[in-house]
Amino acid sequence: KAMPGDSMDKPNIVTCTAPVNIAVIKYWGKRNEELILPINSSLSVTLHQDQLKTTTTVATSRSFQEDRIWLNGKEEDITHPRLQSCLREIRRLTRKRRNDGVPCLDLSCLSHKVRICSVNNFPTAAGLASSAAGFACLVYTLAQVFGVEGELSGIARQGSGSACRSMYGGFVQWIMGNQDDGKDSLAQQVEPETHWPELRVLVLVASAERKPVGSTSGMQTSVETSCLLKHRAESVVPGRMAEMIEAVQKKDFPTFAELTMKDSNQFHATCLDTYPPIFYLNSVSHQIISLVHRYNGHYRDTRVAYTFDAGPNAVIFTLQQHVPEFVQVLKHFFPPETKREHDVIFSYVVFKAGPGPCVVEDPTQHLLGSDGLPKKSM
Amino acid sequence: KAMPGDSMDKPNIVTCTAPVNIAVIKYWGKRNEELILPINSSLSVTLHQDQLKTTTTVATSRSFQEDRIWLNGKEEDITHPRLQSCLREIRRLTRKRRNDGVPCLDLSCLSHKVRICSVNNFPTAAGLASSAAGFACLVYTLAQVFGVEGELSGIARQGSGSACRSMYGGFVQWIMGNQDDGKDSLAQQVEPETHWPELRVLVLVASAERKPVGSTSGMQTSVETSCLLKHRAESVVPGRMAEMIEAVQKKDFPTFAELTMKDSNQFHATCLDTYPPIFYLNSVSHQIISLVHRYNGHYRDTRVAYTFDAGPNAVIFTLQQHVPEFVQVLKHFFPPETKREHDVIFSYVVFKAGPGPCVVEDPTQHLLGSDGLPKKSM
Repeated sequence: KAMPGDSMDKPNIVTCTAPVNIAVIKYWGKRNEELILPINSSLSVTLHQDQLKTTTTVATSRSFQEDRIWLNGKEEDITHPRLQSCLREIRRLTRKRRNDGVPCLDLSCLSHKVRICSVNNFPTAAGLASSAAGFACLVYTLAQVFGVEGELSGIARQGSGSACRSMYGGFVQWIMGNQDDGKDSLAQQVEPETHWPELRVLVLVASAERKPVGSTSGMQTSVETSCLLKHRAESVVPGRMAEMIEAVQKKDFPTFAELTMKDSNQFHATCLDTYPPIFYLNSVSHQIISLVHRYNGHYRDTRVAYTFDAGPNAVIFTLQQHVPEFVQVLKHFFPPETKREHDVIFSYVVFKAGPGPCVVEDPTQHLLGSDGLPKKSM
Repeated sequence: KAMPGDSMDKPNIVTCTAPVNIAVIKYWGKRNEELILPINSSLSVTLHQDQLKTTTTVATSRSFQEDRIWLNGKEEDITHPRLQSCLREIRRLTRKRRNDGVPCLDLSCLSHKVRICSVNNFPTAAGLASSAAGFACLVYTLAQVFGVEGELSGIARQGSGSACRSMYGGFVQWIMGNQDDGKDSLAQQVEPETHWPELRVLVLVASAERKPVGSTSGMQTSVETSCLLKHRAESVVPGRMAEMIEAVQKKDFPTFAELTMKDSNQFHATCLDTYPPIFYLNSVSHQIISLVHRYNGHYRDTRVAYTFDAGPNAVIFTLQQHVPEFVQVLKHFFPPETKREHDVIFSYVVFKAGPGPCVVEDPTQHLLGSDGLPKKSM
């Protein structure tokens, strides 16, 4: 219960966490750069936040003179267009709710400046879709501060496309939508994280010598130059989305796994069909791909699947009972910390599917002090 | 002038040479495995035979008891189905010509057994489309022995698809055709080797640690599993063939070069879209690709193009005036014989476009003696 006197002096502070998601039907290519509308639907698994998450604190106060943001301990430019899109859209939604007669927590804060502080508990450079977790967390936390609930994935999408999928736990589809204004381009939970408890996700954190092409500029070049990408988006993905949703609902691992591998390969194929071509798979990726096919071939059973995004990490899907053996196989072929050519696999992390963004109730976990500045321990 | 007595004792011996060709619009995928009918048309440049060629001697004699074949000094199985296809088709054509009243050199030899001896002046393992040159040479030489002339590319095609393009010099298209019997799936010269004298082809002979998937089985898996390959064959290649023919006719190097690179990339993209995926490009290929784009970018002019087939070698197209500088650049980044990761570039060879198969008039060059056995020097 905010008292009028409180909002004068004490800031309104909320801290939330949000998860990373791993796409099994890939998003690559926008039909609208501004609104971040994709050329095809996609589907992902939300990783549990016990090992990977973004934590964001938002504070608003009448006494703050300007909006400011700190990311991983470093102050960043608050005028970044995608950040501004999220702030603007959350404020617009808050105003709309108020006009619709929905009571809000603190109406006065609409005119207040915000302070944002966000940290990943994993290196941003690891390329683990940190922008997805980051924008999901920002939008979710802002919504808590402004007291708005309900559909927020359309706002997260305007921060970073795949962030909309981090707004839900479990198995999540991002429906591309058809409208020009993007109002129907939203994420939707297909099944909750409790649906398939045996599923495991191994993230192999790797490093590459060269910095790969960023996904924003990469997908733009692909849309402009790859005729295979256009065909994929229009004619291949719609069928795959339906098959993938059915495989998830039925917990049909071999179908889920094969579609995951085929879609990863097709995404990288469209990168190669881009002009100039984009390579995200390196020799270690090739070796992991061939290892997975040999492993499955050995058992005449699809027990393990790989997927690769626009970075060096490999992500492996399997079932609980196969984790120990497959980890042994991986350790045999990729001894941890061993330098293989120019690429290194740093570590393995095993995940389950997990929930969407959460509010952190413990106020000692706030990243910002009541002065609206990062706490010293940051 | 063959005398009846001659054919009793002396064998009829002919020696020919045939060239390697480098596809700039790629052939990948058959619609008929038996007849070797492709799912799309393709276009290649025939390399001059001064440095790379296959030499084949065919001998026929009434005294030979059976058909035999030696390849690169080793006797091979004459019953190989594709070899038998070529022998059968040449004999059928000879019979047809005789029935049509066309005089043949030596009718009696139709019933004679043949001896075939063939050598490449380059290692077969180098993956330089040796089967294309080999089958082109075999069919051309058999045709000389049996005294048939005219359209032979349809027979060479049944030995090895791309062999049909080695039946002509210069710039050659293989028109896919539409008939079920394959009678219209033939090679045709687009322009002779004299048309574009400034064009140069650099072959970078590389070695890879792992033996790649063979093209016959690779393309079969691609046809069965890649939806991008189907789209490429039906919707992308027809337009590219027309553009490429126009670029060759106009000697428009930048257009020729860009189409060559895009088509190489798209071929490798369809290999990656194959399930399980096929990788022919390795880290050295990636480095060469990136070097070519940086080189062209530096000059803001497409001066150099790469193309890669189903093997480790890189082929570079450029114009005469750019060869010295680009070779220096290559030598700087890929010092000859230096081991880079697991891949080695052995050597560079510079080619012009060259003529199709030729008869070797000098009888001392025959690879077979009058006894129908390889000469000792072999």
